[in-house]
Amino acid sequence: MNSSITSLTQQLAQILLAKGFKIASAESCTGGLLAAHLTSLAGSSDWFERGFVTYSNQAKEESIGVPKELIERYGAVSEEVARAMAEGVLNHSLAQVSVAITGIAGPGGGSANKPVGMVCFAWGMQVDDQIQTRSQTKQFSGDRQNIREQACVYAIESLLEQLTASESR
Amino acid sequence: MNSSITSLTQQLAQILLAKGFKIASAESCTGGLLAAHLTSLAGSSDWFERGFVTYSNQAKEESIGVPKELIERYGAVSEEVARAMAEGVLNHSLAQVSVAITGIAGPGGGSANKPVGMVCFAWGMQVDDQIQTRSQTKQFSGDRQNIREQACVYAIESLLEQLTASESR
Repeated sequence: MNSSITSLTQQLAQILLAKGFKIASAESCTGGLLAAHLTSLAGSSDWFERGFVTYSNQAKEESIGVPKELIERYGAVSEEVARAMAEGVLNHSLAQVSVAITGIAGPGGGSANKPVGMVCFAWGMQVDDQIQTRSQTKQFSGDRQNIREQACVYAIESLLEQLTASESR
Repeated sequence: MNSSITSLTQQLAQILLAKGFKIASAESCTGGLLAAHLTSLAGSSDWFERGFVTYSNQAKEESIGVPKELIERYGAVSEEVARAMAEGVLNHSLAQVSVAITGIAGPGGGSANKPVGMVCFAWGMQVDDQIQTRSQTKQFSGDRQNIREQACVYAIESLLEQLTASESR
């Protein structure tokens, strides 16, 4: 395991435990790597609730309720679908916080509009019976493994920032 | 990525593609690591359908239909629950082949009957509208990361043997 992601995961664990939150994940291009990083920490069952590796479009629809129309309209790699994944995970788990990742890890599958290395992220938070989501698209470079690792690091880094910002509000 | 698991995954991909099968996974102690290894291969979407990281007991019950009574009676780390996970994944995916892993990766959580490193596996196969399952328990040694890695290697190795055996029948 990468030491930087281990340290990020430890920080995330501390914040989630302090807030009494649990997290759940929905991953497409990272294929379980984010969940694997999160659960590499001993005691992660105290704050990691479950994860979905929604690799196929049907998995996104059936397992976490992403609307088929959204995938048809915007494509599986889109912030719209990432948000629906983050929201769907909260609706299909006991977690208060969610992370969703959908992107093109390559080497195939890229296009002019959606090149290899493009990854869409969304984060969800259950606040007073309402779900708030945030999304972002990033372009990474490197091979399949590099892109997947960078996506995991970014997903955790950004979530940490959001949780820290919400703390200081 | 470990080169031995990469080679095993490549062999698995070839067999699944040749048979026209897709695979889905349910993981507890490996927390997504098996799915991450499988999807580390480019083109894995042709044969990997989806994965469930059913870390909490509720996740096992809600996401893939493991009976609560089974968990209460035998414990989450048991071949009975592993089989129910493997069966549940087939009932909650479009895959014909499934792998389930539930164990004690440590360092905490072990007991005299179920020591750290004990991992229960089950493999499911959809054959003519019927689900056939097989299960096995293994004892691994090493730290949390080693145990999780060994469990992934074993899950794939054994599945390869089963798929090859069914081929020669």
